[in-house]
Amino acid sequence: MTRLGPGAEFDLIRRFLAGAAPPDAAVGPGDDAAVLRDGVVLTVDLSIEDVHFRRAWLDAEEVGWRAAVASLSDLAAMAAQPVGLLLSLAVPEADAADAALRLATGVRNAAEHAGCALLGGDLTRSPGPWILDIVGVGRAQRPVLRSGARPGDALFVTGQLGGAAAAVRAWRAGREPEPDARAAFARPLARIAEACWLAERASLHALLDLSDGLAGDAAHIAAASDVGIVLDADAIPVHPAAASLPDALDVALSGGEDYELCFAAPSEHVEREREAFERNFGLRLTRVGSVVQGAGVRLRSASGAERPLAAGGFQHFTTENR
Amino acid sequence: MTRLGPGAEFDLIRRFLAGAAPPDAAVGPGDDAAVLRDGVVLTVDLSIEDVHFRRAWLDAEEVGWRAAVASLSDLAAMAAQPVGLLLSLAVPEADAADAALRLATGVRNAAEHAGCALLGGDLTRSPGPWILDIVGVGRAQRPVLRSGARPGDALFVTGQLGGAAAAVRAWRAGREPEPDARAAFARPLARIAEACWLAERASLHALLDLSDGLAGDAAHIAAASDVGIVLDADAIPVHPAAASLPDALDVALSGGEDYELCFAAPSEHVEREREAFERNFGLRLTRVGSVVQGAGVRLRSASGAERPLAAGGFQHFTTENR
Repeated sequence: MTRLGPGAEFDLIRRFLAGAAPPDAAVGPGDDAAVLRDGVVLTVDLSIEDVHFRRAWLDAEEVGWRAAVASLSDLAAMAAQPVGLLLSLAVPEADAADAALRLATGVRNAAEHAGCALLGGDLTRSPGPWILDIVGVGRAQRPVLRSGARPGDALFVTGQLGGAAAAVRAWRAGREPEPDARAAFARPLARIAEACWLAERASLHALLDLSDGLAGDAAHIAAASDVGIVLDADAIPVHPAAASLPDALDVALSGGEDYELCFAAPSEHVEREREAFERNFGLRLTRVGSVVQGAGVRLRSASGAERPLAAGGFQHFTTENR
Repeated sequence: MTRLGPGAEFDLIRRFLAGAAPPDAAVGPGDDAAVLRDGVVLTVDLSIEDVHFRRAWLDAEEVGWRAAVASLSDLAAMAAQPVGLLLSLAVPEADAADAALRLATGVRNAAEHAGCALLGGDLTRSPGPWILDIVGVGRAQRPVLRSGARPGDALFVTGQLGGAAAAVRAWRAGREPEPDARAAFARPLARIAEACWLAERASLHALLDLSDGLAGDAAHIAAASDVGIVLDADAIPVHPAAASLPDALDVALSGGEDYELCFAAPSEHVEREREAFERNFGLRLTRVGSVVQGAGVRLRSASGAERPLAAGGFQHFTTENR
């Protein structure tokens, strides 16, 4: 079993999956997804009202889209091609007609946007909250895990970080977010084509999608790969919607659910593909740090001073940050 | 897309899956599970507190076991060999340590009992109810669908029906169920080995697992296969725990979640294997009716009189029967 980063949530997952010995699995519990021997990749993501989203923030189709992207992004994190999604949906009886259909439409739209289909599902009554659980099914001949980062690799991210967190910050303060922050939260994109492109060309050693926030997710790579990671404060690509916040860097480091890619690879392999990547996808590729010997994640300031970085990502059982 | 039986829940599923065009799927939405072209079988089942179970009725391990069997039974319904389960689990913060672990232990025990493993999962905070969503992954070279029943086939079930419903009846009346009724509800078994054995030897034309109740599930086969089904009232194998109820036959016909198999096959193919089956598995095999031309499900009494049977199974959005 791959080692996970710190945090109460991960301790629990570690405990309850301990002892599982998948006889037909190439990659067991602990990575972004399970991989069967023939390259079938499986992942599952729960989205629950008032834990992962609020009904006042999003319309039902956006809730479905966003829940689906969480699963599709886990496939991207393995450099897998999506085959399809399964949707388990629970809504109160009063929402059974319209809302359920709009939720499912959002899921189907996200699947189709990613080039796959809604394969089936389960629909049931909820005693209260909207509940969506989405299974992502993909295929990867050479899945990229979290565990292959090596000292000397550089750490990169796609896109810009903190946009979704800026939207949540605004809503929680009773304001409507800026349109680009709202879009980052409501209409994220799973970086599937980007991940497969990079996996083919850039010798990726470790890959995941940024769901917990860069600080927490870098800790996952560090723990799984048995290495340390140094992030460069000046290099973090802060989303414009977060840039004006007084704690912009913290928001970019610990705001979850950006669904951008984060990967470790030899710097020169990535640098020689950067221009083609950015031209192809219209998406920035930024070196944010280095993989070093050791353990944990440190943040290096412009002056060169380093401090250990608490993971600080989204921990369902330790914080109330949604 | 396979046509489903009647009922508001199924209308909704039909609507929200309409238009899905699985590019990599041999069997699309509507059967017990989705089947990818290479025989990978996928199914998903939600279990929500106060919808599918009550915490006062079962201990956490039993809740996990039962939720896992619902998924494993869907694999049995395709004559698939299980590869593994994925578990999405949400519990309130206070239950994050002990209850979550016991729920997951129940799931893992059910997986191991069925010869497969827990491959991974997702754990999150619930705003209230315990929520389990379980993905079943299996393999079937020749999956048996719901849609192949032909006029002239006989309809069979394994085991005895109504035990789980008898337990629910007792709990709802404020009594503790008889031990065998309680066991039928709390510790059902997925008939996987039985389904694979029958699929190899008995020319099964249509197969499903009894989750909605025989009346409703026979209607699924009838609708998917474009045939009628006549059930023989005298032949229904009523579970001993239900036999003493004043409406024993109704309980056996419409009580859901027995997780026995129901299949259509040429009578003579099944009859010549019956003795070996019953000896092998210690489980009764009962002919409960016939497949005929037409549509819908009818119940034939001992006198030969027939009446249409309302599906009457578990419909989450039309009844409050849990």
